[in-house]
Amino acid sequence: MTTPVYDDQNIFAKILRGDMPCVKVYEDDDTLVMMDIFPRSQGHCLVLPKAPARNIFDIETPMLEAVIRTTQKIAIAARAAFGADGISIAQSNEAAGNQEVFHLHVHIIPRFEGVSMARPAANMEDGDVLKANAEKIKQALAQ
Amino acid sequence: MTTPVYDDQNIFAKILRGDMPCVKVYEDDDTLVMMDIFPRSQGHCLVLPKAPARNIFDIETPMLEAVIRTTQKIAIAARAAFGADGISIAQSNEAAGNQEVFHLHVHIIPRFEGVSMARPAANMEDGDVLKANAEKIKQALAQ
Repeated sequence: MTTPVYDDQNIFAKILRGDMPCVKVYEDDDTLVMMDIFPRSQGHCLVLPKAPARNIFDIETPMLEAVIRTTQKIAIAARAAFGADGISIAQSNEAAGNQEVFHLHVHIIPRFEGVSMARPAANMEDGDVLKANAEKIKQALAQ
Repeated sequence: MTTPVYDDQNIFAKILRGDMPCVKVYEDDDTLVMMDIFPRSQGHCLVLPKAPARNIFDIETPMLEAVIRTTQKIAIAARAAFGADGISIAQSNEAAGNQEVFHLHVHIIPRFEGVSMARPAANMEDGDVLKANAEKIKQALAQ
Protein backbone atom coordinates (compact mmCIF):
# COMPACT_ATOMS: atom_id res chain seq x y z
CA MET A 1 0.00 0.00 0.00
CA THR A 2 1.72 3.18 -1.11
CA THR A 3 0.46 6.74 -1.19
CA PRO A 4 0.97 8.55 -4.52
CA VAL A 5 3.61 11.27 -4.38
CA TYR A 6 2.47 14.81 -3.59
CA ASP A 7 1.54 16.79 -6.72
CA ASP A 8 2.32 20.48 -6.20
CA GLN A 9 -0.01 21.49 -9.04
CA ASN A 10 -3.13 20.85 -6.96
CA ILE A 11 -5.31 23.92 -6.39
CA PHE A 12 -4.61 24.17 -2.66
CA ALA A 13 -0.86 24.15 -3.32
CA LYS A 14 -1.43 27.04 -5.75
CA ILE A 15 -3.43 28.91 -3.11
CA LEU A 16 -0.72 28.31 -0.49
CA ARG A 17 1.89 29.68 -2.91
CA GLY A 18 -0.28 32.75 -3.56
CA ASP A 19 -0.80 31.78 -7.21
CA MET A 20 -4.56 31.47 -6.73
CA PRO A 21 -6.88 33.51 -4.49
CA CYS A 22 -8.85 32.31 -1.50
CA VAL A 23 -11.09 33.83 1.14
CA LYS A 24 -8.79 33.54 4.12
CA VAL A 25 -10.09 33.11 7.66
CA TYR A 26 -6.97 32.41 9.71
CA GLU A 27 -3.29 31.69 9.31
CA ASP A 28 -0.43 30.68 11.58
CA ASP A 29 3.05 29.28 10.97
CA ASP A 30 1.78 25.81 10.13
CA THR A 31 -1.82 26.13 8.92
CA LEU A 32 -4.18 28.16 6.74
CA VAL A 33 -7.96 28.32 7.03
CA MET A 34 -10.15 29.44 4.12
CA MET A 35 -13.81 29.40 3.21
CA ASP A 36 -14.98 26.46 1.07
CA ILE A 37 -16.32 27.94 -2.17
CA PHE A 38 -18.87 25.09 -2.36
CA PRO A 39 -20.17 25.32 1.21
CA ARG A 40 -22.28 22.47 2.52
CA SER A 41 -23.65 24.89 5.13
CA GLN A 42 -23.20 28.53 6.11
CA GLY A 43 -19.64 28.97 7.38
CA HIS A 44 -18.14 25.79 5.90
CA CYS A 45 -14.37 26.27 5.95
CA LEU A 46 -11.23 24.24 5.36
CA VAL A 47 -8.09 23.80 7.45
CA LEU A 48 -4.88 23.09 5.49
CA PRO A 49 -1.35 22.39 6.61
CA LYS A 50 1.11 24.70 4.86
CA ALA A 51 3.56 21.83 4.43
CA PRO A 52 2.99 19.60 1.41
CA ALA A 53 0.97 16.53 2.40
CA ARG A 54 -1.40 14.54 0.23
CA ASN A 55 -3.53 13.19 3.08
CA ILE A 56 -3.45 11.39 6.42
CA PHE A 57 -1.26 8.63 4.99
CA ASP A 58 1.78 10.84 4.37
CA ILE A 59 1.46 13.93 6.56
CA GLU A 60 4.14 14.27 9.24
CA THR A 61 2.50 13.78 12.62
CA PRO A 62 3.52 17.19 14.11
CA MET A 63 1.86 18.88 11.11
CA LEU A 64 -1.29 16.83 11.67
CA GLU A 65 -1.27 17.93 15.31
CA ALA A 66 -1.05 21.55 14.14
CA VAL A 67 -4.01 20.95 11.82
CA ILE A 68 -6.16 19.55 14.63
CA ARG A 69 -5.23 22.40 16.98
CA THR A 70 -6.36 24.89 14.35
CA THR A 71 -9.47 22.81 13.64
CA GLN A 72 -10.52 23.01 17.29
CA LYS A 73 -9.88 26.75 17.45
CA ILE A 74 -11.88 27.45 14.29
CA ALA A 75 -14.70 25.04 15.17
CA ILE A 76 -15.25 26.88 18.45
CA ALA A 77 -15.14 30.25 16.70
CA ALA A 78 -17.45 29.14 13.87
CA ARG A 79 -20.03 27.84 16.34
CA ALA A 80 -20.08 31.26 17.99
CA ALA A 81 -19.92 33.19 14.71
CA PHE A 82 -23.01 31.56 13.22
CA GLY A 83 -24.85 30.49 16.36
CA ALA A 84 -24.48 26.92 15.12
CA ASP A 85 -26.08 24.04 17.02
CA GLY A 86 -23.28 21.67 16.11
CA ILE A 87 -20.26 21.13 13.87
CA SER A 88 -19.54 18.23 11.53
CA ILE A 89 -15.87 17.58 10.84
CA ALA A 90 -14.71 15.47 7.92
CA GLN A 91 -11.38 14.59 6.38
CA SER A 92 -11.21 12.53 3.19
CA ASN A 93 -8.32 10.37 2.03
CA GLU A 94 -7.89 9.26 -1.58
CA ALA A 95 -10.65 9.34 -4.20
CA ALA A 96 -12.37 6.28 -2.75
CA GLY A 97 -12.55 8.17 0.56
CA ASN A 98 -14.15 11.18 -1.20
CA GLN A 99 -10.94 13.26 -1.49
CA GLU A 100 -11.09 15.62 -4.48
CA VAL A 101 -8.11 17.95 -3.93
CA PHE A 102 -4.92 16.12 -3.06
CA HIS A 103 -3.56 18.41 -0.38
CA LEU A 104 -4.74 17.36 3.08
CA HIS A 105 -7.67 19.40 4.37
CA VAL A 106 -10.19 19.20 7.18
CA HIS A 107 -13.78 20.31 6.58
CA ILE A 108 -15.41 22.32 9.39
CA ILE A 109 -19.15 22.40 8.70
CA PRO A 110 -21.40 24.38 11.05
CA ARG A 111 -24.73 22.64 11.53
CA PHE A 112 -28.17 23.86 12.45
CA GLU A 113 -31.10 21.93 13.96
CA GLY A 114 -33.31 20.54 11.21
CA VAL A 115 -31.02 21.59 8.34
CA SER A 116 -29.32 18.91 6.25
CA MET A 117 -25.91 19.49 4.71
CA ALA A 118 -25.93 20.48 1.05
CA ARG A 119 -24.48 17.87 -1.27
CA PRO A 120 -20.75 18.29 -2.04
CA ALA A 121 -20.06 20.81 -4.80
CA ALA A 122 -23.79 21.48 -5.23
CA ASN A 123 -23.67 25.28 -4.90
CA MET A 124 -20.83 27.69 -5.53
CA GLU A 125 -21.19 30.57 -3.08
CA ASP A 126 -20.96 34.26 -3.95
CA GLY A 127 -17.57 35.76 -3.06
CA ASP A 128 -19.05 38.58 -1.00
CA VAL A 129 -21.02 36.12 1.11
CA LEU A 130 -17.86 34.08 1.70
CA LYS A 131 -15.96 37.22 2.72
CA ALA A 132 -18.73 38.24 5.13
CA ASN A 133 -18.72 34.77 6.68
CA ALA A 134 -14.93 34.79 7.00
CA GLU A 135 -15.24 38.13 8.78
CA LYS A 136 -17.73 36.68 11.26
CA ILE A 137 -15.32 33.88 12.15
CA LYS A 138 -12.44 36.34 12.49
CA GLN A 139 -14.50 38.46 14.84
CA ALA A 140 -15.38 35.40 16.93
CA LEU A 141 -11.68 34.48 17.06
CA ALA A 142 -10.90 37.97 18.35
CA GLN A 143 -13.36 37.65 21.27
CA MET B 1 -22.59 29.31 23.36
CA THR B 2 -21.95 26.73 26.08
CA THR B 3 -21.25 23.04 25.77
CA PRO B 4 -23.41 20.82 28.00
CA VAL B 5 -21.50 19.24 30.86
CA TYR B 6 -20.03 15.77 30.29
CA ASP B 7 -22.44 12.98 31.23
CA ASP B 8 -20.49 9.96 32.49
CA GLN B 9 -23.45 7.64 31.87
CA ASN B 10 -22.90 7.65 28.10
CA ILE B 11 -22.14 4.24 26.61
CA PHE B 12 -18.51 5.05 25.71
CA ALA B 13 -17.83 6.16 29.29
CA LYS B 14 -19.20 2.81 30.44
CA ILE B 15 -16.95 0.99 27.98
CA LEU B 16 -13.92 3.00 29.12
CA ARG B 17 -14.71 2.07 32.75
CA GLY B 18 -14.99 -1.59 31.78
CA ASP B 19 -18.71 -1.67 32.66
CA MET B 20 -19.66 -2.51 29.06
CA PRO B 21 -17.80 -4.69 26.54
CA CYS B 22 -16.23 -3.59 23.26
CA VAL B 23 -14.17 -5.16 20.50
CA LYS B 24 -10.86 -3.49 21.21
CA VAL B 25 -8.33 -2.74 18.46
CA TYR B 26 -5.71 -0.63 20.21
CA GLU B 27 -5.03 1.17 23.46
CA ASP B 28 -2.40 3.53 24.79
CA ASP B 29 -2.22 5.83 27.79
CA ASP B 30 -4.55 8.43 26.28
CA THR B 31 -6.72 6.67 23.70
CA LEU B 32 -8.77 3.56 23.00
CA VAL B 33 -9.77 2.23 19.57
CA MET B 34 -12.69 -0.17 19.13
CA MET B 35 -14.77 -1.54 16.27
CA ASP B 36 -18.01 0.31 15.51
CA ILE B 37 -20.83 -2.19 16.02
CA PHE B 38 -22.81 -0.46 13.24
CA PRO B 39 -20.03 -0.33 10.63
CA ARG B 40 -20.53 1.87 7.59
CA SER B 41 -17.89 -0.24 5.82
CA GLN B 42 -15.68 -3.22 6.59
CA GLY B 43 -13.22 -2.17 9.29
CA HIS B 44 -15.05 0.93 10.55
CA CYS B 45 -13.56 1.75 13.93
CA LEU B 46 -13.68 4.53 16.51
CA VAL B 47 -10.92 6.42 18.31
CA LEU B 48 -11.79 7.72 21.79
CA PRO B 49 -9.82 9.77 24.29
CA LYS B 50 -9.78 8.09 27.69
CA ALA B 51 -10.27 11.43 29.40
CA PRO B 52 -13.86 12.64 29.68
CA ALA B 53 -14.70 15.01 26.81
CA ARG B 54 -18.08 15.58 25.23
CA ASN B 55 -16.74 16.71 21.86
CA ILE B 56 -14.36 19.13 20.13
CA PHE B 57 -15.78 22.07 22.05
CA ASP B 58 -14.57 20.92 25.47
CA ILE B 59 -11.72 18.45 24.93
CA GLU B 60 -8.34 19.60 26.24
CA THR B 61 -6.07 20.24 23.27
CA PRO B 62 -3.29 17.78 24.27
CA MET B 63 -5.93 15.04 24.45
CA LEU B 64 -7.20 15.99 20.99
CA GLU B 65 -3.63 15.77 19.71
CA ALA B 66 -3.38 12.28 21.19
CA VAL B 67 -6.63 11.34 19.43
CA ILE B 68 -5.36 12.52 16.04
CA ARG B 69 -2.02 10.72 16.49
CA THR B 70 -3.90 7.49 17.15
CA THR B 71 -6.28 8.22 14.26
CA GLN B 72 -3.36 8.48 11.83
CA LYS B 73 -1.76 5.29 13.14
CA ILE B 74 -4.99 3.30 12.88
CA ALA B 75 -5.97 4.77 9.48
CA ILE B 76 -2.66 3.60 8.03
CA ALA B 77 -3.06 0.16 9.60
CA ALA B 78 -6.70 -0.18 8.51
CA ARG B 79 -5.83 0.69 4.92
CA ALA B 80 -3.25 -2.10 4.93
CA ALA B 81 -5.45 -4.53 6.86
CA PHE B 82 -8.36 -4.40 4.41
CA GLY B 83 -6.58 -3.34 1.22
CA ALA B 84 -8.72 -0.20 1.32
CA ASP B 85 -8.55 2.32 -1.53
CA GLY B 86 -9.18 5.24 0.82
CA ILE B 87 -10.30 6.23 4.30
CA SER B 88 -13.07 8.63 5.29
CA ILE B 89 -12.64 10.29 8.66
CA ALA B 90 -15.52 11.97 10.46
CA GLN B 91 -16.03 13.54 13.86
CA SER B 92 -19.46 14.81 14.91
CA ASN B 93 -20.22 17.51 17.48
CA GLU B 94 -23.62 17.88 19.14
CA ALA B 95 -26.83 16.32 17.82
CA ALA B 96 -27.13 18.88 15.02
CA GLY B 97 -23.66 17.80 13.88
CA ASN B 98 -24.77 14.13 13.88
CA GLN B 99 -23.24 13.23 17.28
CA GLU B 100 -25.14 10.35 18.91
CA VAL B 101 -22.89 9.33 21.80
CA PHE B 102 -21.65 12.26 23.84
CA HIS B 103 -18.07 11.17 24.42
CA LEU B 104 -15.77 12.50 21.69
CA HIS B 105 -14.95 9.93 19.02
CA VAL B 106 -13.39 9.88 15.57
CA HIS B 107 -14.78 7.55 12.91
CA ILE B 108 -12.20 5.77 10.72
CA ILE B 109 -14.07 4.31 7.74
CA PRO B 110 -12.09 2.26 5.20
CA ARG B 111 -13.38 2.88 1.69
CA PHE B 112 -13.34 0.79 -1.47
CA GLU B 113 -13.66 1.95 -5.08
CA GLY B 114 -17.28 1.90 -6.19
CA VAL B 115 -18.68 1.06 -2.75
CA SER B 116 -20.83 3.63 -0.94
CA MET B 117 -20.83 3.87 2.84
CA ALA B 118 -23.73 2.16 4.57
CA ARG B 119 -26.14 4.53 6.28
CA PRO B 120 -25.41 5.23 9.97
CA ALA B 121 -26.74 2.55 12.30
CA ALA B 122 -28.19 0.61 9.35
CA ASN B 123 -26.60 -2.77 10.13
CA MET B 124 -25.39 -4.19 13.43
CA GLU B 125 -22.40 -6.42 12.68
CA ASP B 126 -21.87 -9.91 14.05
CA GLY B 127 -19.44 -9.97 16.98
CA ASP B 128 -17.20 -12.62 15.44
CA VAL B 129 -16.83 -10.54 12.27
CA LEU B 130 -15.90 -7.49 14.37
CA LYS B 131 -13.32 -9.54 16.29
CA ALA B 132 -11.81 -10.86 13.04
CA ASN B 133 -11.59 -7.33 11.65
CA ALA B 134 -10.00 -6.02 14.85
CA GLU B 135 -7.45 -8.82 14.57
CA LYS B 136 -6.60 -7.76 11.02
CA ILE B 137 -5.91 -4.19 12.15
CA LYS B 138 -3.81 -5.43 15.09
CA GLN B 139 -1.75 -7.55 12.71
CA ALA B 140 -1.21 -4.57 10.41
CA LEU B 141 -0.13 -2.48 13.41
CA ALA B 142 2.42 -5.12 14.30
CA GLN B 143 4.03 -5.01 10.83
